[in-house]
Amino acid sequence: MMNSRPTPLIAIHGGAGTIRAGAADAGQEHEYHAALRDILTPPQRLLADGGSALDAVCLAVELLEDCPLFNAGHGAVFTHDETHELDASVMDGATLRAGAVGCVSRVRRPVRAARAVMEHTEHVLLVGAGAEALAERLGLEMVSRDYFSTDARREQLRRALAADQALLDHDAASLVFRSPTAPLDEDRKLGTVGAVALDARGNLAAATSTGGMTNKQPGRIGDSPVIGAGTYADNRTAAVSCTGTGEMFMRVAAAHDICARMAYGGLSLEQAARQVVMEVLPAIGGRGGLIAVDAQGNLSMPFNTEGMYRGFARAGEAPRTAIFG
Amino acid sequence: MMNSRPTPLIAIHGGAGTIRAGAADAGQEHEYHAALRDILTPPQRLLADGGSALDAVCLAVELLEDCPLFNAGHGAVFTHDETHELDASVMDGATLRAGAVGCVSRVRRPVRAARAVMEHTEHVLLVGAGAEALAERLGLEMVSRDYFSTDARREQLRRALAADQALLDHDAASLVFRSPTAPLDEDRKLGTVGAVALDARGNLAAATSTGGMTNKQPGRIGDSPVIGAGTYADNRTAAVSCTGTGEMFMRVAAAHDICARMAYGGLSLEQAARQVVMEVLPAIGGRGGLIAVDAQGNLSMPFNTEGMYRGFARAGEAPRTAIFG
Repeated sequence: MMNSRPTPLIAIHGGAGTIRAGAADAGQEHEYHAALRDILTPPQRLLADGGSALDAVCLAVELLEDCPLFNAGHGAVFTHDETHELDASVMDGATLRAGAVGCVSRVRRPVRAARAVMEHTEHVLLVGAGAEALAERLGLEMVSRDYFSTDARREQLRRALAADQALLDHDAASLVFRSPTAPLDEDRKLGTVGAVALDARGNLAAATSTGGMTNKQPGRIGDSPVIGAGTYADNRTAAVSCTGTGEMFMRVAAAHDICARMAYGGLSLEQAARQVVMEVLPAIGGRGGLIAVDAQGNLSMPFNTEGMYRGFARAGEAPRTAIFG
Repeated sequence: MMNSRPTPLIAIHGGAGTIRAGAADAGQEHEYHAALRDILTPPQRLLADGGSALDAVCLAVELLEDCPLFNAGHGAVFTHDETHELDASVMDGATLRAGAVGCVSRVRRPVRAARAVMEHTEHVLLVGAGAEALAERLGLEMVSRDYFSTDARREQLRRALAADQALLDHDAASLVFRSPTAPLDEDRKLGTVGAVALDARGNLAAATSTGGMTNKQPGRIGDSPVIGAGTYADNRTAAVSCTGTGEMFMRVAAAHDICARMAYGGLSLEQAARQVVMEVLPAIGGRGGLIAVDAQGNLSMPFNTEGMYRGFARAGEAPRTAIFG
């Protein structure tokens, strides 16, 4: 089995959260399934053509960033100050190289900036103006700050402010208004996008990108750009991308913890991923989920919320998508 | 043994690095030993009086920040742009609560700002102006940007710029000039300060603070404020504070990895700490060291460089300090 060429696999997520009040609308659900499927197809093809896991996760996350349905890139949520602060990271399981950016507001596709940090600097994490200066110097596409804004997200901020959210209260669950157009309650959703992949050479990679949390304190960095918390990849164990209450994922180093339970405790991917999502995170109040793939092509996508936008595609098979449990 | 009241312990480090060219000067070495001993005494007393590990590590790091000999707080190195960007973090092993700040330049004692993030927000990591706004709002002591500057550090930047360091080249080992006044070569030193402690109730805590690397790219965040990389604490395993080539510590989630090897692999503190410092980090070119303590009062202080400023003090015993192997 170890000698057989692995079947490439791409998996993506678009955030975890609770079901929208008023029951799901079949048309709205269809829109999300279609978006996830459309996003899976190009990286699936890339992998089938012999492309790398690293290229596949970056392509998948770029497409998620470009899609306004998900909280990353275009369609990112607003901070308390009505600005956007985007975070992203990427990790190559073959080399343990990693790159990340935090609090960028002018880079169109933050995951490309994260990859630029990995490939063109000695650093792992650059934040703010320093990260933007690097992106600009390397010729990445820069946009005006309002590129990321959508009317739906502005309305979300208005509701959050109206609900009198404490400045530092990021707990979306305390919001009382409902989103009009999504299967998962956008006002309660823990928004992040991410991808994990296995390529034909047996290499793993993971990438994550987010607009953070509506009404968040400027300068807040969550788990998404933190290697070990929101993203981790190591060919010897797994590639992991998380979504949820980021601070809880940081406190338990969630993504790295899955790899460590496999490496030192001998757990399977599914056992390790479920322990972290169903036991470790809930013990400190952590909510959300993750997607993870190992070098044998096993896939785990656990979440402890009512739903998580997710999908996967193995080479040669039709993509599969899901929202609820 | 598990029922006996543990003997409190505080350990500190002031950075790892290579021996200064021209051999050590006894008078210079004495100055560093004396500073480390003076810094150990107040947290040792605090712990002996029943104080918490959390308070002890914060006190120790504040004293290290105030001491101009070490690269944190007053005496921090300069960035390429001749500014200071300070990072710090703290973690409470009893609750897994953590707080950190990155790229602050006006908070006198960054570790206090890290603790404020932990105790007064829902967040774990705040960077830049957002972190400073929080510190100011909470009444922490703010200083002008030149408070952190010392002539010795300005001279170090001048040498780094003269050596034509590439903008993103943070590898201190490529510097060719020598520092005039320290046992470890200040131009090659991997500067960070940190503390770990065990208190009489068996609780663990860790804290780390740094001025980063001379001539670094603005916006660079190293391992010091990253929970799991430069700092981790969990009563079930260990409290860890790292110093070294930060990016390598981030890529292997060094501090969390020690705890994971103990928890899932059954290793002792010494075995786990040595594996990470002597095997895992060197495999990717990582240089530096760390200090770690477990709930039984075991202490490990491995480093893969020629020296690491370090010391420890158990309640009721004289503090012990060391620089070389």
